[in-house]
Amino acid sequence: MLTVAQYLNLVLDSVTELPPMELPISEVNGCVLAEDIYARWPLPSFNNSSMDGYAVISADLVDASESSPVILPVVDDIPAGFKSLETLHSGQAIRIMTGAPMPAGADSVIPIESTDGGSESVQIRASIDLGSCIRHEGEDVKAGDLVLGKGTFIGPRQIALIAAVGHGSISVVPKPRVAVLATGSELVEPGTELKFGLISDSNSFLITAAANDSGADAYRLPPAQDDEDKLIHILEDQVHRADLIVTTGGVSMGAYDPVKAAFLKLGTAEFHKVAMQPGMPQGFGSVGDLAIPIITLPGNPVSAYISFETFIRPAIRKMRGLGTLQRPLQSATIRGELNSPVDKVQFARARFIEGGQVEPVGTGQGSHVLGGLAQADALIVIPMGVDRIASGDEVRVINVTGGLA
Amino acid sequence: MLTVAQYLNLVLDSVTELPPMELPISEVNGCVLAEDIYARWPLPSFNNSSMDGYAVISADLVDASESSPVILPVVDDIPAGFKSLETLHSGQAIRIMTGAPMPAGADSVIPIESTDGGSESVQIRASIDLGSCIRHEGEDVKAGDLVLGKGTFIGPRQIALIAAVGHGSISVVPKPRVAVLATGSELVEPGTELKFGLISDSNSFLITAAANDSGADAYRLPPAQDDEDKLIHILEDQVHRADLIVTTGGVSMGAYDPVKAAFLKLGTAEFHKVAMQPGMPQGFGSVGDLAIPIITLPGNPVSAYISFETFIRPAIRKMRGLGTLQRPLQSATIRGELNSPVDKVQFARARFIEGGQVEPVGTGQGSHVLGGLAQADALIVIPMGVDRIASGDEVRVINVTGGLA
Repeated sequence: MLTVAQYLNLVLDSVTELPPMELPISEVNGCVLAEDIYARWPLPSFNNSSMDGYAVISADLVDASESSPVILPVVDDIPAGFKSLETLHSGQAIRIMTGAPMPAGADSVIPIESTDGGSESVQIRASIDLGSCIRHEGEDVKAGDLVLGKGTFIGPRQIALIAAVGHGSISVVPKPRVAVLATGSELVEPGTELKFGLISDSNSFLITAAANDSGADAYRLPPAQDDEDKLIHILEDQVHRADLIVTTGGVSMGAYDPVKAAFLKLGTAEFHKVAMQPGMPQGFGSVGDLAIPIITLPGNPVSAYISFETFIRPAIRKMRGLGTLQRPLQSATIRGELNSPVDKVQFARARFIEGGQVEPVGTGQGSHVLGGLAQADALIVIPMGVDRIASGDEVRVINVTGGLA
Repeated sequence: MLTVAQYLNLVLDSVTELPPMELPISEVNGCVLAEDIYARWPLPSFNNSSMDGYAVISADLVDASESSPVILPVVDDIPAGFKSLETLHSGQAIRIMTGAPMPAGADSVIPIESTDGGSESVQIRASIDLGSCIRHEGEDVKAGDLVLGKGTFIGPRQIALIAAVGHGSISVVPKPRVAVLATGSELVEPGTELKFGLISDSNSFLITAAANDSGADAYRLPPAQDDEDKLIHILEDQVHRADLIVTTGGVSMGAYDPVKAAFLKLGTAEFHKVAMQPGMPQGFGSVGDLAIPIITLPGNPVSAYISFETFIRPAIRKMRGLGTLQRPLQSATIRGELNSPVDKVQFARARFIEGGQVEPVGTGQGSHVLGGLAQADALIVIPMGVDRIASGDEVRVINVTGGLA
């Protein structure tokens, strides 16, 4: 029997950060940068107006005021994206839009709000300081600056900077493609009428959604019968498509283990008992010519989910190139009591309630209690050596929400 | 000039929760449930074994022990998904897999670990309590139970329950399709060489990624020139595709406002100055026969981002049917100082540092400073009436990370 930490290390050692891939910047949100990003040009890349108004020479407006406005002829008009061919001389104004290049000769911009907005001539009702309302070339970023380093997590704000400094595609660690397969002859598609002894497949939907919430590009396969040849055929289809294959079911202690047999025919696999509840039977290995990692979870949905959180979410994050693999453990006071097996870590489903407290959910903590799982937003982690938690005790808790709630 | 709260209310009033849509459960992760979900059958839907082992009559094992095992003939073998046609009688065992239906006559399951795992006959080395290792029909969920209520946020754990109680498709509030269009004749695709006066479009990538991180199904359109007819054509393409159109640029105080003109030709629009920095010029309305909401943001990327966070993210969340629209404000101590316009709310870019402190980032807080924005993971919100924040002051902060970092 392995500890959770021992087994997690084995699983993490079996996967590697994915090789980098050049992708258009429309596709990199949520990826990790696989190269340093340098500015191809300065930001701003030319002196430009920070306001809609008029480019002027500030000395011309020294005496301008509400009661005695200065009137200047407007000799040109510069929209953003255009450049004035005129050189501004003393006693002239050029209409200018926010972001448009400063015309030669001008040293300041007077905002339109301080004028009558005229197009032939403009009446200006205020003076301005020399250099007002100009954004200077390179004041944000200089050409050649390292703007983002390899290993940076790329979100919307980083994409904006990468685009602005001139990169339409960049090298990133791509999202792992994760194929999710529930196995078991008892499984039918949800929505179909159940014959006696059969159950709806829920694992593949659960694990696909959880993998996507973990930053994978996960897809669900239809449930597979407990048939070694069929399983081999399904897995062979995936070994050139997926970066990771996750299966559920077929790895317990029983007599029928076509999943184990299929794994071993296609590659290597090892199966372990892990000192945790739920989630004891676990397995991992690699399959196909490319030695694609494969991880198999217990078939019970609650066990599968706890196992996903404990082993596969960290593995996906390692494949994504992230440094922090595990969700943080926080402290909370429990309202309610729990028994726990002294020789295993228990992951008890719970929900956060007022005052930073947690309470266990579900009619019991049996590994089949899906009703409770759907009410849970936390897992209470009860370490080995503890057999009972009393109401009011301080416990260690993982917040399992995320995604977009 | 409107306050941020006044303008936010106008924007929120201009959008509505999207009408519900029936979707397969593979497509509902991150959606809000638009109907109550009832169990079509109990969970478990039949008495089944919680272990791989042997179905027995517990009274037969009263004297079983390590030193004096009981030996029983194995009269049948039940994989998961199959039903035994045999009725178990006293003195017999039936091999059974986890999840398989209990055979008639059996009252308990002895785990395989307490046996020799035999297939013709089995040697059992322990006694068990009556009813051991059986999951009883309906002990988790009863047929007809309300398992999840309308309005529930659907994540992986909820999808598992919905699948398990028999629903292959459900009614949800769909993800809003958001079309993102940057406008401005100065914009070119990132990666192309810049001619003088032009800049890389970064806004559309920024806003598309931020909208996706807010739970939208957002897509980017190529940048549009400042040309009223072309803009009308582009918007007409989208009014039957998008649930919300977001544009950037073209709403400042200047002389060229084809964006305003295009909005007004296609529907209604209003433009406001909002007492915030950055982000003052804002506009919203609705376009086309279906009165699709449209929101336009300032063209400067930092202004666009702050405006997105302040107005559009809450609007998208309202369209998604969520109750909580805004990110929480938290308290933090600032390291560093900031000036702020007394008549506006300032949203200063900052990053979290050790000890729950925040420090301003970027070479300045000008609205063009993209380098600083990419370093930020927080916005410091400085209210109206405050013109200066000193190092060590307590400030209100929004954590703007999310997504999958």
